[in-house]
Amino acid sequence: MKRIESIKNPQIKQWKKLHTKKERDKTGTFIIEGFHLVEEALKCDVVIRDLIVSESIDLPTSWNVTNVSLTIVTEEIMKDISDTETSQGVAAICEQYTTQVNLSTVQKLLLLDAVQDPGNLGTIIRTADAAGIDAVIVGEGSVDLYNSKVIRSTQGAIFHIPIIKENLSHSIKKIKQYGMKVFGTSLKNAIDYKQAQVAESFALIVGNEGNGVHPELLNMTDQNLFIPIYGKSESLNVAVAAGILLYHLR
Amino acid sequence: MKRIESIKNPQIKQWKKLHTKKERDKTGTFIIEGFHLVEEALKCDVVIRDLIVSESIDLPTSWNVTNVSLTIVTEEIMKDISDTETSQGVAAICEQYTTQVNLSTVQKLLLLDAVQDPGNLGTIIRTADAAGIDAVIVGEGSVDLYNSKVIRSTQGAIFHIPIIKENLSHSIKKIKQYGMKVFGTSLKNAIDYKQAQVAESFALIVGNEGNGVHPELLNMTDQNLFIPIYGKSESLNVAVAAGILLYHLR
Repeated sequence: MKRIESIKNPQIKQWKKLHTKKERDKTGTFIIEGFHLVEEALKCDVVIRDLIVSESIDLPTSWNVTNVSLTIVTEEIMKDISDTETSQGVAAICEQYTTQVNLSTVQKLLLLDAVQDPGNLGTIIRTADAAGIDAVIVGEGSVDLYNSKVIRSTQGAIFHIPIIKENLSHSIKKIKQYGMKVFGTSLKNAIDYKQAQVAESFALIVGNEGNGVHPELLNMTDQNLFIPIYGKSESLNVAVAAGILLYHLR
Repeated sequence: MKRIESIKNPQIKQWKKLHTKKERDKTGTFIIEGFHLVEEALKCDVVIRDLIVSESIDLPTSWNVTNVSLTIVTEEIMKDISDTETSQGVAAICEQYTTQVNLSTVQKLLLLDAVQDPGNLGTIIRTADAAGIDAVIVGEGSVDLYNSKVIRSTQGAIFHIPIIKENLSHSIKKIKQYGMKVFGTSLKNAIDYKQAQVAESFALIVGNEGNGVHPELLNMTDQNLFIPIYGKSESLNVAVAAGILLYHLR
């Protein structure tokens, strides 16, 4: 167990930097905060480099932290490291990881094209996990998966569901070979999602908050779907749309 | 047209304060930002006390601002007033308003019990509008409707759909008298939402992010529904859940 009391300690400065993508990419690590997320990380295969605990906090006795490197810090330091307004006094530095998924064996996939809002990306991952989707493929142009707000919004689902980073046109070619039905989402040249022929094995693509799914990808799908808008709103939030479609298609 | 160049101008200080609930309550006004929201406000019945425009900005010629009090400010002032990281250079001070809705004539209602996250409240209002819901009733314990983040997340739907603030047990008693079917959402003593008997005239209640709908309200419903969780996530985001249920029930 280590103890750090100075806010100027270089280790503290480095941990704080993990709120930037640059530092996360450089170190291959990311930071998570709060009891729920740290508990989920401890239950899963993710490597925890450092468990950081505020001196006023007692860890739950149910946590198995025997083999985890523990650092006790002052409350001031914890506040300094934290990205949230009210820190719970617990954080962890985890190693980024790549999930190996054999796409020929999965039944239900969600593909994300350039989802840029961290809260949206996290909520979509949480929704995909809840809907029993086998894996999520995050395409280029999406916000960094290891952004603190993304992880917070997943509510731990980031540790439950395999997430693959890949070029989406590459993914679509592969999964079509495996006989999966590929659904895009679009307002043009699309059918009402309730008319979609539900398939046992499918992939759904949802897209960028402003521009939707890229036309090139929409041209590769088997069918494009839209959710009818009955009121004056122009569109639905992308995470809400993903939830409606995933729960309908599954 | 007025022009303000000093950041210390008392008017600027007062506008900035509108990011606090206290000042909004005191003045009965609220602030909106960005082209889309201001355009929606101009199209609707809401009273605009001040339209604030950064000196570098040309207003769209399609906007009818003849009768609106206009103030030109420096970019520095606009940045200072703004709640967002990158201001679009347009903001407006609007009057809070109460919508009169005759609940005996509406068919589809959404009731919100203590929804506390501004992004969630706004996204739910946007979703309710898109789903063609007639009105939203916001119960006690919910975040302030005029919070900037709520308004931003509605994407303008706050100006499209009637929103009533009311004690929910009071609302439920009324709408049951009008023969509406009232659905709660709960994990206990509830049925799978896909088994719900869809009614032409219904009210759905969704609840607080952590605690769900208050048990007292759940006891007053005709039927409580749950959305099955197929993965390891414990629950769905409340806005996503509202979207799945509203699109299924309508």
